[in-house]
Amino acid sequence: MRDIFDAELTQLGEDLVAMSARVERAVTNAGVALLTADLPLAESVIADDLGIDAMERDLDERCVLLLAQQQPVATDLRIVVSALRMSASLERMGDLARHVAQVTRGRYPRHAVPQSLSGTFTEMHDAAVRVARRTTTLLENHDIALAESIETDDDLLDELHEDTFTALLGGSWAGTAQETVDVTLLGRYYERFGDHAVSVARRVTYLVTGALSEDAPTPA
Amino acid sequence: MRDIFDAELTQLGEDLVAMSARVERAVTNAGVALLTADLPLAESVIADDLGIDAMERDLDERCVLLLAQQQPVATDLRIVVSALRMSASLERMGDLARHVAQVTRGRYPRHAVPQSLSGTFTEMHDAAVRVARRTTTLLENHDIALAESIETDDDLLDELHEDTFTALLGGSWAGTAQETVDVTLLGRYYERFGDHAVSVARRVTYLVTGALSEDAPTPA
Repeated sequence: MRDIFDAELTQLGEDLVAMSARVERAVTNAGVALLTADLPLAESVIADDLGIDAMERDLDERCVLLLAQQQPVATDLRIVVSALRMSASLERMGDLARHVAQVTRGRYPRHAVPQSLSGTFTEMHDAAVRVARRTTTLLENHDIALAESIETDDDLLDELHEDTFTALLGGSWAGTAQETVDVTLLGRYYERFGDHAVSVARRVTYLVTGALSEDAPTPA
Repeated sequence: MRDIFDAELTQLGEDLVAMSARVERAVTNAGVALLTADLPLAESVIADDLGIDAMERDLDERCVLLLAQQQPVATDLRIVVSALRMSASLERMGDLARHVAQVTRGRYPRHAVPQSLSGTFTEMHDAAVRVARRTTTLLENHDIALAESIETDDDLLDELHEDTFTALLGGSWAGTAQETVDVTLLGRYYERFGDHAVSVARRVTYLVTGALSEDAPTPA
């Protein structure tokens, strides 16, 4: 019985890693598509999000089955409940990558990001890709030093998000209303992407150390 | 044993109702504060969100304890897992009400919503309040006809959200960049508020009827 349960927990962990890897690919491609106005790449991110949603449903069903059949307690129970939470965060990260791709598609053949902000959004893209890659690795190897670097990059995403407002509201902004709307939404998508990764990172840290940070965001 | 468990399930249901009632108050006050530029009311929404967050944590701890101590299966298990999901959605709805209040506070003593869009945001506020009130009632009495009316108001919120873009991008918009940013974000907050309520409504419907809509949004 315990062997079966351990195998199922291992499978659950592998599914989370696979889901995170797919989110990593989504946010990478969404950012490249955004920065290069690549319509086919944006379309592929939008289409692939259905696959991420399906992974969440499968993973959740597996968790509920595990709870019903194995009746886990203590740490095992925390692992299964955390997996439910983390799959919700990862699914949401996939949605946000899709939203970036949808803005890209909506503006094509123009660039959604005006030239004056391409540096800021390149930095946001780089930080989001690092965050996604480290989330996958953290789920794989439980090296909680990675959780810290995810928090650092989330702070950077928050700063870059602030930078977009400074650019929009600083008085020298001459963009169109469409550009203002796009920059506002894109900035928010990247900022939320970081928040969800931090939520996953804190849950892994909690499982490893037993201490959940008081101000941990809920897996919104 | 079964009696204790039933009492605990009842308590869980009451906690969800209490949490939803608090979200209802938050979104009501946030909208009134927004539409009347009422700073103290906005501040109260911001402060009260900590209480909603605390309710989520308590409710989640209770769910995990219930899973550990009562080892529920079948419908009971689904109820507890759904409660975990629904508390996450309600917490997020509280966050969104807080975000509306924060925009209000940031613009005070000016109004965040320009005169030309006050009608649209009044309608959004009314729809969000109806959605929140019906969510509370649905959690209380499980009358799934309410779930349908929540979906209808969510569709209305989506349309009103589209209306804000039409106003911003229609060519006759003469607002400042700050107004464009605020309208973009406020519209998105209300639109997401509706999505989360629909997620709660679909979970209640699923518990009552056993059928989860395929395209049900995850409790992001």
